[in-house]
Amino acid sequence: MTVTTFSKLHATGNDFLVWSRLDGRATVESVGVKQAAALCDRHRGVGADGLIVVTLGSDGADAEMLLFNADGGIAEMSGNGMRCVAWAAARAGLGGNGSLLVDTGGGRRVVDLQRDERGAVIRATVDMGAVTFEPSEIPLDAPSAFDLEVDYHGVQYRGDAAGVGNPHLVLLVDDPATARVTEHGRHLEHDSRFPRRTNVEFVTPAGVDTITMRVWERGVGETLSCGTGACAAAAVAHRRGLVGERVSVYVPGGHLVVELGTTVRLGGPVVHVFDVDIDVDALVEERTQ
Amino acid sequence: MTVTTFSKLHATGNDFLVWSRLDGRATVESVGVKQAAALCDRHRGVGADGLIVVTLGSDGADAEMLLFNADGGIAEMSGNGMRCVAWAAARAGLGGNGSLLVDTGGGRRVVDLQRDERGAVIRATVDMGAVTFEPSEIPLDAPSAFDLEVDYHGVQYRGDAAGVGNPHLVLLVDDPATARVTEHGRHLEHDSRFPRRTNVEFVTPAGVDTITMRVWERGVGETLSCGTGACAAAAVAHRRGLVGERVSVYVPGGHLVVELGTTVRLGGPVVHVFDVDIDVDALVEERTQ
Repeated sequence: MTVTTFSKLHATGNDFLVWSRLDGRATVESVGVKQAAALCDRHRGVGADGLIVVTLGSDGADAEMLLFNADGGIAEMSGNGMRCVAWAAARAGLGGNGSLLVDTGGGRRVVDLQRDERGAVIRATVDMGAVTFEPSEIPLDAPSAFDLEVDYHGVQYRGDAAGVGNPHLVLLVDDPATARVTEHGRHLEHDSRFPRRTNVEFVTPAGVDTITMRVWERGVGETLSCGTGACAAAAVAHRRGLVGERVSVYVPGGHLVVELGTTVRLGGPVVHVFDVDIDVDALVEERTQ
Repeated sequence: MTVTTFSKLHATGNDFLVWSRLDGRATVESVGVKQAAALCDRHRGVGADGLIVVTLGSDGADAEMLLFNADGGIAEMSGNGMRCVAWAAARAGLGGNGSLLVDTGGGRRVVDLQRDERGAVIRATVDMGAVTFEPSEIPLDAPSAFDLEVDYHGVQYRGDAAGVGNPHLVLLVDDPATARVTEHGRHLEHDSRFPRRTNVEFVTPAGVDTITMRVWERGVGETLSCGTGACAAAAVAHRRGLVGERVSVYVPGGHLVVELGTTVRLGGPVVHVFDVDIDVDALVEERTQ
């Protein structure tokens, strides 16, 4: 029986299990797809939107992260997940100078930390790299990322695709509160123009430099928040002239701030909920009975 | 800061947080509706279908349970929850003679325990009391519990109401796998004939003395399993001549056995997933920000 300690954290309601494995390496095989899915199972496991394994970085990076979605699939990058990584890395003694360099499947990222009086990270701002509208980079099989038309069960959507380390389809809607996110997101994730499937944001302007959105995350379902989705939505809204360069993004799980520039920065809170010790092999075995 | 230890358990995928508080009493006020809802929150809390507080029993009972649904509302009784109670009570040293007497909001219940070689409860069979078809006892505002007709958005359902300490509407469908449980259950929970709302089961026969079902739980949503729902469904199927007195009930979360007689007995597995220490007040405060 091997018992492992995981930290459950949430960043605007997007919740992750973080496994700090600073004394080793992590690969998809060494962690295990079944193991990740069992841990993220909300009824029979611990429950989370994803599992993040944090290891020590190399070549100048402080840390490296490997992110599994709840279904065990691999994601390149998660802005909300990065804030959870920042909390865990700071607890392990990294980031003492106020920032962290983290290697992700979507490239190297800088994270600026804000701590409480006890030194715990309570807020983090992540440099998410450049937002791309270049179809081959998103990736998108279409001549342009702009003014995509989507028709599903009689509902016409219009929007733009964007890449923030992972693919996004940002749809402008009248009111995210009444958008059929679950029903339509499930379908649009598999839009044939996105060879690696896509996240889908349902977005509307909501005041000066402010948007509200709901998001369907690829491989997960509707979530309370999605960091890369907020960046993609802010970039699309900015390009369409709806907001300036510093954008407040309201998601069901809270409030994010996106700063647009050569690269895009995502800021928001992170909350440590609990630590848990669990025998992952026993969990997998029980769940597959 | 007051840190409390909770056990997360699941019984055929119906998962509960159990708080063993054998040195005290528990009331809705002393535990708190907000506290229960915050703990059951799957993204910002620990996550569960419900919270059960177990205290020492009185007047001959071994234990007493108080059950909160995920929204903080009170439920009288849960057959799957009772198996989780049995696990926690046995760990606390109760039930040494192989059974427990537990007082619930739905009355006193006998639970028979099956243990592994280390003494942990792995399976429990709960005497759920009598299933009633008497409208005033369910409670149901209709002259009869039988052959109720329900029409929702062009779909006609037929079924019977039953009471198992809490109200149930058991609907016979062609195939639970394709039933619109979420969409229609959400509505049917509020059928005006049920003054205390109702749980809704979508049921079909599936072989000799076997039924399959999916369930919409009042105040929770669709769940992987519901113990009282399995009893209600088995009793309805038996009354209609579809099954005998010992009924296998397949739910999405696993397999239950219902024995029908003067009273009804529900048997099935229980699994301990993890223990967690948490500051509930901090959780409530953070969640309401």
